[in-house]
Amino acid sequence: MTIEHPSAPSFVLVRPQMGENIGAAARAMLNFGLDHMRVVAPRDGWPNPAAVAMASGAGRVLDHALLSPDLPHALADCSFVFATTARDRDLTKPVYTPEAAMQLAAQKIANGQRVAVLFGPERAGLENDDIARSNAIISVPVNPEFASLNLAQCVLLMGYEWMRLHATQPAIVEELAGGEWAHNSEIEHLAKHYEERLEEAGFFYPEHKAASMKLNLRNLWSRLPLTRADVQILHGTLRQMVRWKERS
Amino acid sequence: MTIEHPSAPSFVLVRPQMGENIGAAARAMLNFGLDHMRVVAPRDGWPNPAAVAMASGAGRVLDHALLSPDLPHALADCSFVFATTARDRDLTKPVYTPEAAMQLAAQKIANGQRVAVLFGPERAGLENDDIARSNAIISVPVNPEFASLNLAQCVLLMGYEWMRLHATQPAIVEELAGGEWAHNSEIEHLAKHYEERLEEAGFFYPEHKAASMKLNLRNLWSRLPLTRADVQILHGTLRQMVRWKERS
Repeated sequence: MTIEHPSAPSFVLVRPQMGENIGAAARAMLNFGLDHMRVVAPRDGWPNPAAVAMASGAGRVLDHALLSPDLPHALADCSFVFATTARDRDLTKPVYTPEAAMQLAAQKIANGQRVAVLFGPERAGLENDDIARSNAIISVPVNPEFASLNLAQCVLLMGYEWMRLHATQPAIVEELAGGEWAHNSEIEHLAKHYEERLEEAGFFYPEHKAASMKLNLRNLWSRLPLTRADVQILHGTLRQMVRWKERS
Repeated sequence: MTIEHPSAPSFVLVRPQMGENIGAAARAMLNFGLDHMRVVAPRDGWPNPAAVAMASGAGRVLDHALLSPDLPHALADCSFVFATTARDRDLTKPVYTPEAAMQLAAQKIANGQRVAVLFGPERAGLENDDIARSNAIISVPVNPEFASLNLAQCVLLMGYEWMRLHATQPAIVEELAGGEWAHNSEIEHLAKHYEERLEEAGFFYPEHKAASMKLNLRNLWSRLPLTRADVQILHGTLRQMVRWKERS
């Protein structure tokens, strides 16, 4: 039994049945950088070839998994335990959303505590005895008329919430790969270019509508999120139309 | 072709390959109350028996799915399109987190726009031509060293973010099913009960430590999140210890 540094929660699969699901859970974990798995009394023994086959690139999560005969053994060194449940249960434990749970887990881990998240067996989910050993419950918001999350999907959502908490990715990146937003003066120049050529081409007709047509066109250019490269393309298309006309 | 009311985004599977993955995507959607699926040029034709078998309880998502021969047909009535990608692409589109994307989708839908989210085929993901028809990109935060999200998992995460936005579930529910938090006066009474009996039992020894031992015990009781029922159990255990002593 290697004791990992508690930089992330341990995900504890309690009495898992199908090896495929254990492997899929390992993949789901590693997708979000989690590799502390614990396995309690797996139905088909350990190591499980079906789990290894399914895990493929995430095999090392299984290699390092802590195998336990029962839940108290698996949780011995943990000081805070979350139980994931799909249905509501009449138990006196605080109930967290996945997001709030991973926030609390991160706080506790930052304070040096070891945190575990329990996932029940495929069919039945965690038993009341398992939940009695937990400090809090995580309830995943699902459609009450169709709640069919499987083990690996539940692991995936918790891993995702953990990753989301630590990802440095900004919510929206408007910075353009290989591009820069056009400056106002460039948009101004573009608008003038179109206005002049279209004036020559007789676009602003009838005369009494010309002013509002020009205004609409100005509004159009200023509303568009154009890069400097976009502006050059638009200049180019207009110039080419003029050249085409001049050739004829 | 039934045009649904745009109360939720349409999830568009672009050139999906395995029927199982289409069925799993339908299940993932319905888990979060989403049932507007569109399918573009599925490799194995339509309807797809393997998809139907896998979808089981979510079969109606497939029954109502809009089949299109190509992406422009599938997107004809949409005014905002997100493309999901795993890898970064050198394309001049704003990049959103799943959370920020679903927030923007909800805003646009509230304003009467129809929003689509594109999911690429299993192996290759969306092509540059697909992304060129999109208004923005959704990038899922994953472990760069192991990014193996499959189609249904990607659908699951987007559905989860949509549900999270609309779920009324508070982040933390401390309200106790069938219980009420103990009032301060009840904790006070419990502390006194223990203090008195333990005094009689000779627990506060040696005398010069008695005051700090009592303080520690007071701190213990007040730190615990006890319900009224918990307090009654603790009174009961103490009373029983006294009865046991009196019987001997």
